Amino acid sequence: MTGILCRGRIPSPTGERRSMNDHEFFELGDLTLQGGATLRGAKLAYKTYGTLNEDRSNAIVYPTWYSGRHWENEWLIGAGMALDPERYFIIVPNMLGNGLSSSPSNTPPPYDRARFPRVTVADNVAVQHRLVTEHFGIERLALVTGWSMGAGQTYQWAMSYPEMVPKIAPFCGSAKTSEHNIVFLEGVKAALTADDAYRGGWYTEQPTKGLRAMARVYAGWGFSQAFYWDRVYRQMGYTSLEDFLVGFWEGFFLDNRDANNLLAMLWTWQNGDISRTPGFEGSYEEALATIEADALVMPAEKDLYFPPEDEAYAVERMANAELRVIPGVWGHFAGGGMNDEDTQFIDAALKELLAR
Amino acid sequence: MTGILCRGRIPSPTGERRSMNDHEFFELGDLTLQGGATLRGAKLAYKTYGTLNEDRSNAIVYPTWYSGRHWENEWLIGAGMALDPERYFIIVPNMLGNGLSSSPSNTPPPYDRARFPRVTVADNVAVQHRLVTEHFGIERLALVTGWSMGAGQTYQWAMSYPEMVPKIAPFCGSAKTSEHNIVFLEGVKAALTADDAYRGGWYTEQPTKGLRAMARVYAGWGFSQAFYWDRVYRQMGYTSLEDFLVGFWEGFFLDNRDANNLLAMLWTWQNGDISRTPGFEGSYEEALATIEADALVMPAEKDLYFPPEDEAYAVERMANAELRVIPGVWGHFAGGGMNDEDTQFIDAALKELLAR
Repeated sequence: MTGILCRGRIPSPTGERRSMNDHEFFELGDLTLQGGATLRGAKLAYKTYGTLNEDRSNAIVYPTWYSGRHWENEWLIGAGMALDPERYFIIVPNMLGNGLSSSPSNTPPPYDRARFPRVTVADNVAVQHRLVTEHFGIERLALVTGWSMGAGQTYQWAMSYPEMVPKIAPFCGSAKTSEHNIVFLEGVKAALTADDAYRGGWYTEQPTKGLRAMARVYAGWGFSQAFYWDRVYRQMGYTSLEDFLVGFWEGFFLDNRDANNLLAMLWTWQNGDISRTPGFEGSYEEALATIEADALVMPAEKDLYFPPEDEAYAVERMANAELRVIPGVWGHFAGGGMNDEDTQFIDAALKELLAR
Repeated sequence: MTGILCRGRIPSPTGERRSMNDHEFFELGDLTLQGGATLRGAKLAYKTYGTLNEDRSNAIVYPTWYSGRHWENEWLIGAGMALDPERYFIIVPNMLGNGLSSSPSNTPPPYDRARFPRVTVADNVAVQHRLVTEHFGIERLALVTGWSMGAGQTYQWAMSYPEMVPKIAPFCGSAKTSEHNIVFLEGVKAALTADDAYRGGWYTEQPTKGLRAMARVYAGWGFSQAFYWDRVYRQMGYTSLEDFLVGFWEGFFLDNRDANNLLAMLWTWQNGDISRTPGFEGSYEEALATIEADALVMPAEKDLYFPPEDEAYAVERMANAELRVIPGVWGHFAGGGMNDEDTQFIDAALKELLAR
């Protein structure tokens, strides 16, 4: 548990380094995915914070984001915060493909590496639902919240299991991946796979040139133009623009982030769309209209791939949703836990939503 | 001359295809660059439109942009338009590195290919100045205008030769490349050079995988989020998002755009800064304050790498500058001549500026 806001601390690009073994696994058995493939012996890695109360009413699901691991969510969990383990039982499920849950990097042949099947956001939420219901016996959650692809999973929870989800707080993410967002990710993917060392996914060593190229492409998108104009990276402890590109961005993608894993999650992201939920037939707008959860939707003012306009569009079409824009220059990373002001903004909103 | 606005026409990604031989060369001799290298036998390729009048007072300089060739500027030139060849003598100099003027691809050893020296925006403007004064005997221009890196050269003209430049109209560009813009270009560069076929610039065939990757990275930046949300590419004749990525973007960078040339111009762009003009000592703000030209500065509302805020900052610090934001969703390509509304906006502004 981090607990304390990290004022003044130089953030590591990937948060506190944690042991890769401080989590548990939920055995999924033969997991048939939305696309038709069956992952045999699939596993969901998760970590919990706090204690489930007697009537099992205090559980919060807080999924991970693109390439994130459960310990990289911990900045929003702590004593005195909205996600207070003294009060809530917080479950952080690791996304399929993130290297801890079933992923290209840890699945045995024949579904290993470049053959890892396509996993949807709905697939992720379905296995999380099994963890919550089958393993913990929880029938109703207090809240689902998440950043970025975690926000996508948050929306998906409200869509897939409306009776279980009274409240959602997606931040810096969307219920459907926009076309521009898909294009941004095409650039990321093209940079990574341009490296011949990638070998169509059958590499023996990580294609580091491609990973570093991907990091540089990502760098322009993750933070806003104004963030760079103000050189906020200096406040983070980086000594020059190039130091930020290498120290933060390249370091980020070289930190145990396997190329096939990144591409698997990238596919999941590009194909995020609540209107493609199994059993639902209708448009994106119709899907949004079915969401009845009390929703506090928090895009960041200068997020370049989840712009506030897109979330305003969604909120207008939901029954009980409020748009609350995170102000400032941090762009997408306003939701990344590196800026105290943004963290306090999100935390205050979550407190308010939980208290309703 | 195109002359007529291309209403209803499906734009080719690279404008009208022109012969590579419809231009002239100005021999620069031994060209010593700002960085100290000397390009022996350097050439400036240019094309003119209209006739120089007797007192040599009707010349307009309209430089090219990143990877652009003179024929890709012609959409803004024509009868009845501001840049009317019946009235003005319009000189379009090709940027050094663009494949027509001296470039990595056409310079003989030893300064060929990966050894092509670093060229600044000020270097470009210095050779254009020689063309204008030595070759045409022009002492004062009517106007300098340009898009993107052409806007950067426009600012540089006002900075380097203030006595010659009474009016400037830079659109979708800046007098100094911002840090965010540098980062965006780092992503482009990393994607291109991730391809092993690039071979550090000593390729025997174009690194097409890298060029295509670069195109996909660029795709997210060239047009705005809202452009993709509205699927405006369909109005351009592209039948799907992927068709736009391949048909427009990959086609764009595969159209005779040599990798070393692109990297040479990318360096020029990243290092654009009027405060580094030879002989000037001072900050960016001080450099802006020296510009006395009547300036009509036109950023595009949703330009992702030359955001209007940056140009507002510049205009506030210039003596005679007006900010006029091009509205709409086209982003950077509002200045690319593919959208009639934007073209008319720019053309009307140029008419007004020329009439003052």
